[in-house]
Amino acid sequence: MSLEKLFEPSSVAIIGATVKRDKVGYAILKNIIEGGYKGKVFPVNPKYEEIEGIKVYRSIDDIKDEIDLAIIAIPITYVPRTLESLGKKGVKAAVVISAGGKEAGEEGKRLEEEILKAARKYGIRFLGPNCFGFINTSIDLNANFGSSMPLKGDTAFISQSGALFAAIMDWAIDESIGFSYCISIGNMADIEFGELISYLGKKENVKRILIYMESLTDAEKFVKYTREVSKEISVIIAKAGRSEYGIKAAMSHTGALGGKDFLYSACFKRVGAVRTETVESLFDLTEALSKQPIPNGNRFAVLTNAGGPGVLATDRFDYWKVKPAELSDETIDRLNKILPPAWSKHNPVDILGDATPERYREALKILLEAPEVDGVIGILTPQFMTKPYETAQAIIDLLKEKKFGKPFYFSLIGGERVESARHLLDKSGIAAYETPEEAVDSMILSWKFRYLSDTVSKEKIVKKSSKKGRRLIEEFVRDKKLLLTEYESKLVFEKYGIPVNRTVLLKSEEEIKHIDLKYPLVVKIKSPDILHKTEAGGVIIGIKNENELLDAFEKVIKNAKEYKPDARIEGVIVEEMVEEGLELIVGSSRDKIFKQYMVFGFGGTFVEFFKDVSFDFPPLSKEFAYEMIRETKVYKLLKDGFRGIPPADIEKLVEVLINVSNMLAENPEIVELDINPLIVRGGSIYAVDGRMKLTEEKEEHIIFKV
Amino acid sequence: MSLEKLFEPSSVAIIGATVKRDKVGYAILKNIIEGGYKGKVFPVNPKYEEIEGIKVYRSIDDIKDEIDLAIIAIPITYVPRTLESLGKKGVKAAVVISAGGKEAGEEGKRLEEEILKAARKYGIRFLGPNCFGFINTSIDLNANFGSSMPLKGDTAFISQSGALFAAIMDWAIDESIGFSYCISIGNMADIEFGELISYLGKKENVKRILIYMESLTDAEKFVKYTREVSKEISVIIAKAGRSEYGIKAAMSHTGALGGKDFLYSACFKRVGAVRTETVESLFDLTEALSKQPIPNGNRFAVLTNAGGPGVLATDRFDYWKVKPAELSDETIDRLNKILPPAWSKHNPVDILGDATPERYREALKILLEAPEVDGVIGILTPQFMTKPYETAQAIIDLLKEKKFGKPFYFSLIGGERVESARHLLDKSGIAAYETPEEAVDSMILSWKFRYLSDTVSKEKIVKKSSKKGRRLIEEFVRDKKLLLTEYESKLVFEKYGIPVNRTVLLKSEEEIKHIDLKYPLVVKIKSPDILHKTEAGGVIIGIKNENELLDAFEKVIKNAKEYKPDARIEGVIVEEMVEEGLELIVGSSRDKIFKQYMVFGFGGTFVEFFKDVSFDFPPLSKEFAYEMIRETKVYKLLKDGFRGIPPADIEKLVEVLINVSNMLAENPEIVELDINPLIVRGGSIYAVDGRMKLTEEKEEHIIFKV
Repeated sequence: MSLEKLFEPSSVAIIGATVKRDKVGYAILKNIIEGGYKGKVFPVNPKYEEIEGIKVYRSIDDIKDEIDLAIIAIPITYVPRTLESLGKKGVKAAVVISAGGKEAGEEGKRLEEEILKAARKYGIRFLGPNCFGFINTSIDLNANFGSSMPLKGDTAFISQSGALFAAIMDWAIDESIGFSYCISIGNMADIEFGELISYLGKKENVKRILIYMESLTDAEKFVKYTREVSKEISVIIAKAGRSEYGIKAAMSHTGALGGKDFLYSACFKRVGAVRTETVESLFDLTEALSKQPIPNGNRFAVLTNAGGPGVLATDRFDYWKVKPAELSDETIDRLNKILPPAWSKHNPVDILGDATPERYREALKILLEAPEVDGVIGILTPQFMTKPYETAQAIIDLLKEKKFGKPFYFSLIGGERVESARHLLDKSGIAAYETPEEAVDSMILSWKFRYLSDTVSKEKIVKKSSKKGRRLIEEFVRDKKLLLTEYESKLVFEKYGIPVNRTVLLKSEEEIKHIDLKYPLVVKIKSPDILHKTEAGGVIIGIKNENELLDAFEKVIKNAKEYKPDARIEGVIVEEMVEEGLELIVGSSRDKIFKQYMVFGFGGTFVEFFKDVSFDFPPLSKEFAYEMIRETKVYKLLKDGFRGIPPADIEKLVEVLINVSNMLAENPEIVELDINPLIVRGGSIYAVDGRMKLTEEKEEHIIFKV
Repeated sequence: MSLEKLFEPSSVAIIGATVKRDKVGYAILKNIIEGGYKGKVFPVNPKYEEIEGIKVYRSIDDIKDEIDLAIIAIPITYVPRTLESLGKKGVKAAVVISAGGKEAGEEGKRLEEEILKAARKYGIRFLGPNCFGFINTSIDLNANFGSSMPLKGDTAFISQSGALFAAIMDWAIDESIGFSYCISIGNMADIEFGELISYLGKKENVKRILIYMESLTDAEKFVKYTREVSKEISVIIAKAGRSEYGIKAAMSHTGALGGKDFLYSACFKRVGAVRTETVESLFDLTEALSKQPIPNGNRFAVLTNAGGPGVLATDRFDYWKVKPAELSDETIDRLNKILPPAWSKHNPVDILGDATPERYREALKILLEAPEVDGVIGILTPQFMTKPYETAQAIIDLLKEKKFGKPFYFSLIGGERVESARHLLDKSGIAAYETPEEAVDSMILSWKFRYLSDTVSKEKIVKKSSKKGRRLIEEFVRDKKLLLTEYESKLVFEKYGIPVNRTVLLKSEEEIKHIDLKYPLVVKIKSPDILHKTEAGGVIIGIKNENELLDAFEKVIKNAKEYKPDARIEGVIVEEMVEEGLELIVGSSRDKIFKQYMVFGFGGTFVEFFKDVSFDFPPLSKEFAYEMIRETKVYKLLKDGFRGIPPADIEKLVEVLINVSNMLAENPEIVELDINPLIVRGGSIYAVDGRMKLTEEKEEHIIFKV
């Protein structure tokens, strides 16, 4: 069933409506009435005849009309039987306000399951439990107990925290931000994020979806629907629980089993949703997106009447690793013609403390017309000659006269002297901020949305399969060989097109004639008692033929015995020699919510210390494999080369990542993979060491379906 | 001369006062009159008889009274001769408002020098040029042209940007933040930061100094005075120009030769000043410090009526790498007694959505009384049952009844519903913020100030000298040997107590019997044509005696010739072998503003890539040497050990850093030093490779004087 009956009802019953003013059941009824809802309203409570002049029904059965939506505000223990009654009457949608579900411990969890069972029996879809309700401004339905009605608009808001829902609504009303839908999602026993995003994404009056999220329950649905929706409309998420302590706090208060926070970031990226650091920037960004075009690139200009704040804006670009736009000679020439000689002559464009409204207007026009500029951030400080209000008016006029198709955000620093200008801009649909940093953040996040959304639209996942590789894994599992050695892992890697340098473990000299490796080779002693092989003379490199290999075999054993007479010698490892290169890591692991995920980054000994890694999910597309590489710092070294190591063949590295992702997608038994190092030198790429862990259980392990 | 005449004048002349309302000379006179200044005011302008009913003097000589301060608002070209006239009359203080100094290019720079010359001739001290003026609220003197009079208070503010001065004053008036002094520092041709900080630091009515800084001109004075002042009062600095682009913008707009931005951070730390990221947080912090006690430690508790925002606060702690306070069993017990059973049972203390004012009050009392808590951050979201105003009142009453000596900051999220509560708190001296993040930032920065200020107070610098080391450097310089080799550098290191593994370069076998090194040794081929020595068989380790050394000498030469027949062989390097350990870097370089500085951090090949380094200045104290180590990420590996490497002897490492700093302090000829790697393994620390660059010029090179 679709969620139309729930969010666009023609009639609403309020189970638990009451005359007691400090009760939720009173607040909801009052909000619905005062909101101006035109549909039918049926308060239900056996104790009252009427509330505030509205007829009250003793029970659900007393209502003869059809009920589209039931809002349930009674103690949670009564909710399952209420759903039974509703189901029998044919009601198909409910909002369960009642708290005391899984957030309250074991007993609550049991009750929540009972509620779900009753709802499923009759095909009832519901929000909650433990939720604040929702608002649909298009039908004037304010079905919540925490907030008054916000302005109408084309933004939808979903909050996983009831308290923040109320606080943010209070704030939004203050700031005149308009909404189409505001939904408190509660414990998500039935309806969760994915379905809600899909529903809202199809509405004419939803141009962007704002989310305050603490955790996902169904990552697969979220991925499926958000990927579809984000191609058309922007999805912006403030996700709490970034830190270890934050996660602890989030878990104890919702009882949800949240996945790893960095996987949320990776998942949002992959579905084209933008994550903001704070709730404040969630709103700053909403203001920007609802008022101005989204920039097509990230070359931004700053227009200011003061040097200092121009510096602050430029600093903020650096924080985001974005380079300010470089102005062309033509643009500089045009600016020279209209600006006094002392202007800054470059970006930030400082038009000086005595800048008139006309000067602002003309300079802005030139910058918005410049093809090398994708958006402009204006800054005004109220100096002696400054006319904030007139400047705002001049800019509004300019943007009305001509459509530039590029965003302009204005930051007016100060109090009283700029207040009316800020207000005028707000009213006229131009985003006005207090600090340059807020304006820069919003501009860059808008662009990030465009960039991610484009990448998601372009993305093509080509799944590749390997019969031989699949058979190998099946055999290992059948033989209960679940921890694969380097040698065994490399056999599988080769089948999936992951290049390896081959390795054998020799127990005796005789085996040398049977080996099938490419010279030059490296020989290493294998002993659990010798940690520093090189020090022990246990490593010999550059072996060019069988004779040298025989010599080396004897010598490392001799050296090892001299170094530590009681060392246990398990044999001699012989490897194909790999030239010095950049050492990377490619791996995979599993998460409760996000299932199989991949990691890529700077490898070697210090991998855990520097944590220069990025995350994504199999199967990878070319676009996002490339993105994974670009997100790391080591990308710079790969691209430019480093200390005698030539630049890497990035296309080939992308190919290797895709092959790894296909190996993971095809084999649900792989629960852990660790290739470290993957040595890259120009076009030569080798998995030099690798391990895999398998499981006998074959479970659903991929949230990104092709 | 002290700056009393300038900032506390009994009489003020305004040179360039005018009737033209759009001129600076009018605005200043008007601001002084309207501000209620009780001293004598002498407008000077040959064109007018009177302005707004005040008598105007034709020239300075026409004024018969004594003039304490002259404010000069005439075109800059006339300023030098005006200073002559003022000097002849015996005026000792001026504010040069006029723009067009060094910020305007070469001609301006020349004019500024002329102004300084004229001032010096008569002993006139001055602010500017290119400045907005200043405000001294205690004598009601509003001597600037950009802003109205702020409230009286005990905060002083110095701004290097005139535009930001105006904007921030406008803002401060709006937010009811009180000031004692507000000073636009201008181009700092004469008075610069150091002297101003010293002057303000001695004033009874200055409890903290806020600074917006773009660059320093005299780091030594800044260091000297801020170090003194910060022991008593807090110095908070928002410094612009953090990024490469930001520095470019800052330089072009003030014409200042700024030093490296990371050295500003290091310098602020070393003098006990706190740096904030944005102007907004400068003010948030001011609000906190002016209203509440400074926390004694960094164990903070969060008290909230909603889980979500509690998570946001906890996330923010993690951003600062601060762990939330762990509540004792006793505190939990006390809270259990007054809170409903569903409360969170740990920090953040979630007292639930229906929290009453009384519940807030009681829980806050318990937390402020808990010895394991150094400060409390409160959060309130306006839920259905929430009474924001009454809650604020209950908290104000509690804090009036009992002095806990710990800070409490309150974050009230929302708009209209919490507005009056926020206002009540503001009035009652309790810092009230909009978002949990702002409250957390302010709390942690307050603590950081305490921590830094304590460290500065405790710091003891013990200078050590080495006659032999000094003589060596003098000899090198005399012989014009300015680029020291590893061998030569290590000779100097040893004299200053920097442990080295000794190294010699052998040209022939015969030299072997003369070497004075400790076995075991390492032998390496030296050839400009062989980059990968190990691959070439050019490295042999673990040499135990002279015989093995002879063999190794021959063998590496033979191997090298085989590997690359045409390689030029310059000799064989013989080193004392150092066990595997953590590879660090210790170095020094020079900066225009900050002179000699030191760097410490993670060394080895990837040092420039990971940039895990900290900075400070010689001579180092034990306290700040320790701080330098603690600031890096590699500190964790040093402290805990890493992959078979035992934990480092940090005390000994501190000693080595101090010795390096003493070597730098004693030898002004050292312009660059690079010890990489310094290998640390437990208590064994060796400078394994090192280089120095000397200069023949012996210039002032230390800004931290003992």
